[in-house]
Amino acid sequence: MPIDPDSSIAITTFGWVPDFARGFVRDLRPRWACEEAGIGYAVRTIDVMNKPEEYAALQPFGQVPVLHDGPLHIFETGAILLHLGEKSEALLPPGGQARADTIAWLFAALNSVEPYAFEATQVNGFAREEEWARLRWPGLQERIATRLTLLDTALGDREWIAGSFSIADIALVTVLRELDGHGLVSAHARLADYLARGIARPDFGAALDAQLALIDGSAPPPKEI
Amino acid sequence: MPIDPDSSIAITTFGWVPDFARGFVRDLRPRWACEEAGIGYAVRTIDVMNKPEEYAALQPFGQVPVLHDGPLHIFETGAILLHLGEKSEALLPPGGQARADTIAWLFAALNSVEPYAFEATQVNGFAREEEWARLRWPGLQERIATRLTLLDTALGDREWIAGSFSIADIALVTVLRELDGHGLVSAHARLADYLARGIARPDFGAALDAQLALIDGSAPPPKEI
Repeated sequence: MPIDPDSSIAITTFGWVPDFARGFVRDLRPRWACEEAGIGYAVRTIDVMNKPEEYAALQPFGQVPVLHDGPLHIFETGAILLHLGEKSEALLPPGGQARADTIAWLFAALNSVEPYAFEATQVNGFAREEEWARLRWPGLQERIATRLTLLDTALGDREWIAGSFSIADIALVTVLRELDGHGLVSAHARLADYLARGIARPDFGAALDAQLALIDGSAPPPKEI
Repeated sequence: MPIDPDSSIAITTFGWVPDFARGFVRDLRPRWACEEAGIGYAVRTIDVMNKPEEYAALQPFGQVPVLHDGPLHIFETGAILLHLGEKSEALLPPGGQARADTIAWLFAALNSVEPYAFEATQVNGFAREEEWARLRWPGLQERIATRLTLLDTALGDREWIAGSFSIADIALVTVLRELDGHGLVSAHARLADYLARGIARPDFGAALDAQLALIDGSAPPPKEI
């Protein structure tokens, strides 16, 4: 049972977020990794509206999650996934081309695919009522389709992106899930199937449920955003 | 002398690129790392206008560089830097919080800062004559300034981002150099000084010279782009 208040591994996240962020807070990635590897973790929450001053020393951009592992603390989900990966071959092969491919695809998800999701979230989300965003959205959709076509070809008929299921899939599936929220994945049949396979894993479901349970129950929403 | 045609480590890059890309091709990052650590590397070139079909198996997005290390091949500059980092403590501390910080900042440069540089390159570069881009540029500059203010605070008075000079600095300095090309760094005094310190390192200069020498000399430009 991965949630274990006595674990020396802890994930710091928000105890409440606005509705649009529910189910998409980035603690989902390390929670999913811990579920897959059977690594028990405690949860520590901070208040999204009133972050403790000392939190900036742990996370320079005021975001979550931070992973604590005994005396160590780590920010950035990519770095956290890599750190957890070293604990289990269920997450990261120990050597050879399989390890190299897994780490390459971990970075690719975060540096060569997720920037498109960030842009889609601005253009088709936060800024969608603005003139520039309305003008931009058709061209951005084309740009993203071009990138996802290459990704779809790279995936081909493989079940997982770098051989066995790994931290690369945890990163890439969650990035595709962000893009899918903008309707951008379904045109790419193999990627759509891959995304469906990823989120159908029971350990993804357990991680998502744990995030939602925390956000539902442990902290009342602040009076205003 | 890092360039060594007999090395079992090789960097695959382009032998010619358009003027706007000269000095900014991403082989700069692994070249710089090899220079810092005294790791000899061979150079293999491919034609940017006519990539060999089999290259897609090495780099799914048709980009450079790829690192070859004996039988292994690795794409994504973050993964390549991490791989080279394991070869030298001049690039990556072997353990403890120093190693965790270095890897966290490597990912932060690529996932929490570089996406802003990608967007600036579109809005203030490729698309700058388009209506949406003209409307977007002021707001994007503000967004980037907000992010760089947090980064400037996180850097504080440190010489390098994660303690000693490391692969995290190779990533972050090259990202800031991209943003600086859009005039976005100089308002942040500590970041501007940090960028200047980074590019003043003789090993950065050697890497840049090697990239430019290759692009100048080894391949004539194709007849048309």
